Amino acid sequence: MLKAIINAGTLKELIEVISTLVDEARFKLSSEEMAVIAVDPANIAMVSFKISSDAFESFEVDSDNEIGVDLTKLSDIVGMSGSGDISLEVGDGKLFIKFLDLTYSMSLLDPSSLKKEPKLPSLDLPAQIVLSGNEFRMAVRATAKVSDVVIMGIEDEVFFMEAKGDLDSARMELPKDKLIELKASDVKSLYPLDYLSDMSKPISKANNVCIEIGKDFPLKISFSIADDKGKVQYLLAPRIEAD
Amino acid sequence: MLKAIINAGTLKELIEVISTLVDEARFKLSSEEMAVIAVDPANIAMVSFKISSDAFESFEVDSDNEIGVDLTKLSDIVGMSGSGDISLEVGDGKLFIKFLDLTYSMSLLDPSSLKKEPKLPSLDLPAQIVLSGNEFRMAVRATAKVSDVVIMGIEDEVFFMEAKGDLDSARMELPKDKLIELKASDVKSLYPLDYLSDMSKPISKANNVCIEIGKDFPLKISFSIADDKGKVQYLLAPRIEAD
Amino acid sequence: MLKAIINAGTLKELIEVISTLVDEARFKLSSEEMAVIAVDPANIAMVSFKISSDAFESFEVDSDNEIGVDLTKLSDIVGMSGSGDISLEVGDGKLFIKFLDLTYSMSLLDPSSLKKEPKLPSLDLPAQIVLSGNEFRMAVRATAKVSDVVIMGIEDEVFFMEAKGDLDSARMELPKDKLIELKASDVKSLYPLDYLSDMSKPISKANNVCIEIGKDFPLKISFSIADDKGKVQYLLAPRIEAD
Repeated sequence: MLKAIINAGTLKELIEVISTLVDEARFKLSSEEMAVIAVDPANIAMVSFKISSDAFESFEVDSDNEIGVDLTKLSDIVGMSGSGDISLEVGDGKLFIKFLDLTYSMSLLDPSSLKKEPKLPSLDLPAQIVLSGNEFRMAVRATAKVSDVVIMGIEDEVFFMEAKGDLDSARMELPKDKLIELKASDVKSLYPLDYLSDMSKPISKANNVCIEIGKDFPLKISFSIADDKGKVQYLLAPRIEAD
Repeated sequence: MLKAIINAGTLKELIEVISTLVDEARFKLSSEEMAVIAVDPANIAMVSFKISSDAFESFEVDSDNEIGVDLTKLSDIVGMSGSGDISLEVGDGKLFIKFLDLTYSMSLLDPSSLKKEPKLPSLDLPAQIVLSGNEFRMAVRATAKVSDVVIMGIEDEVFFMEAKGDLDSARMELPKDKLIELKASDVKSLYPLDYLSDMSKPISKANNVCIEIGKDFPLKISFSIADDKGKVQYLLAPRIEAD
Repeated sequence: MLKAIINAGTLKELIEVISTLVDEARFKLSSEEMAVIAVDPANIAMVSFKISSDAFESFEVDSDNEIGVDLTKLSDIVGMSGSGDISLEVGDGKLFIKFLDLTYSMSLLDPSSLKKEPKLPSLDLPAQIVLSGNEFRMAVRATAKVSDVVIMGIEDEVFFMEAKGDLDSARMELPKDKLIELKASDVKSLYPLDYLSDMSKPISKANNVCIEIGKDFPLKISFSIADDKGKVQYLLAPRIEAD
């Protein structure tokens, strides 16, 4: 079904990106890529992830199929490996993970027992900003100190993230010339910071992160991993402002 | 009221020195300096701190005034900044803290709601020792392993710190030639190690720490931060020996 | 009774090797060496340890004797020292530990109050493997993720460690050419992983670790510390397989 070799670092990145939202996931395997679309248990956020077979040292899939993986366990095992290569093999309802002189055999989950793959909504959002993942994480950490929701928006070609607590507030502003890209009309929307805090960890490693915003629409965050061979898209439901 | 720029490292040092004893403090601002005198909630220790306007990249105060600051919050925010400069601005009952592309606005506390500034007792203590902050911290950690009080004293031009537990004991001895300075007659007194453990963290960073001791008198510990532009003095009430 | 100087690193290694199994130990002192034989409170594992007087900077014992030492306390104190030398002196029912300008005095334990020294069984085990301590630790960590017992054995000149959980399993295999040494007939036996996890920490620092196995016999693990001047032997009772 699957026979692949992948660098341990790439495998760790891949797991982190998905396990931010779900503990168990179904991986769709084809000869060209591995893909996951999953929604978190509370139906607030979604991840769509694809990684090309080119990101692997070797990658063989005989026919399109689907496997269910316990990401917590996989992450725990892969965490023991150094920085070398890891071999992954599926057979007999099991995933065999090999590195150094060790072999793990991990029972696969029945894909039909996992939450159904959600439909990715097609969104046409009015504002699009590209900034560094690091800067995004900084703003998330800062605003999370004063509130549990953040306003993200554009005002006169300035991108801002702002949170207001009862006594204190925090605001990050990035004018157009400090952004990698800005295509936007004025807009703002409200998002939950607990999800953004979790997401911002894998996001922080990306040089270019594309953020798309629409008033009371889901937030769309796109970035790549594995030298552009893996594509990640997060969608996060807005909080509706009471004003 | 206040408009200043300060290096993040200096600001962190300054906060640590005061927050060792209190969570909230009133800062007295004048055009020449910023000063804090505070006593801990249990009235056992006191800190007197002054930092010259020269320690700042820029420092403007239009008229003498006082602000109340939540040090726990300030420390949490400043902890996010890297090693660059931080801008502080007071206005409208708020402290604005800016670094990178972030602005925090933190409500100030009403100075009159804070514990009254204590009177600094004038002490003329018979023994004075100058040693490195590191050595002081070492002795505090060592004696704290066997007791919760330490005897500090001078005997025949040897400075010692000693603690006796039920079964074990620990003693540090520094003869005159291992001290930076010693002006002393023989004397010893007893002090609580819990306070000294907290104080010894900021103290350990100072090259020269001046310790003054008098039998059953408060312990006086003086050192500088910020390239000598900030002066710290701790006073710590003695424990009275039962013998 | 004892007057010795020892490098702090060596002393820390020595304590770690013994304190893996017991909190308190009796040290037998002679002019040539220091030795400990101890069994853990549950009577499942044993340590036999000897360190030659050559491992010390200086070592004087006037007549053969025995001291009882609280290893937890000693480890805590020695942990404060840097990497320099530590002086140990026994007198008056106390152990005096000196480093830098500090002196600790620690009450010794009455050796007769400690658990009796066990008899070391003489074992002639059929299989003997020499591998690196690091590899051993890796296999222990890996198998401990899926079970609380591990099968260790030899099959066709391949050394393996294997654990089977309800769903998952882990196996390390080292063929003869990846081992430092292999003298063996085919054999396997079962051992508890909790003890092996603790033991594997000091073991991991050794380049060469000798493992001896016999079906349902105690496991014997031997290695050196302190540049071969200290010899450690662990014995670990097998778990009897129910099959």
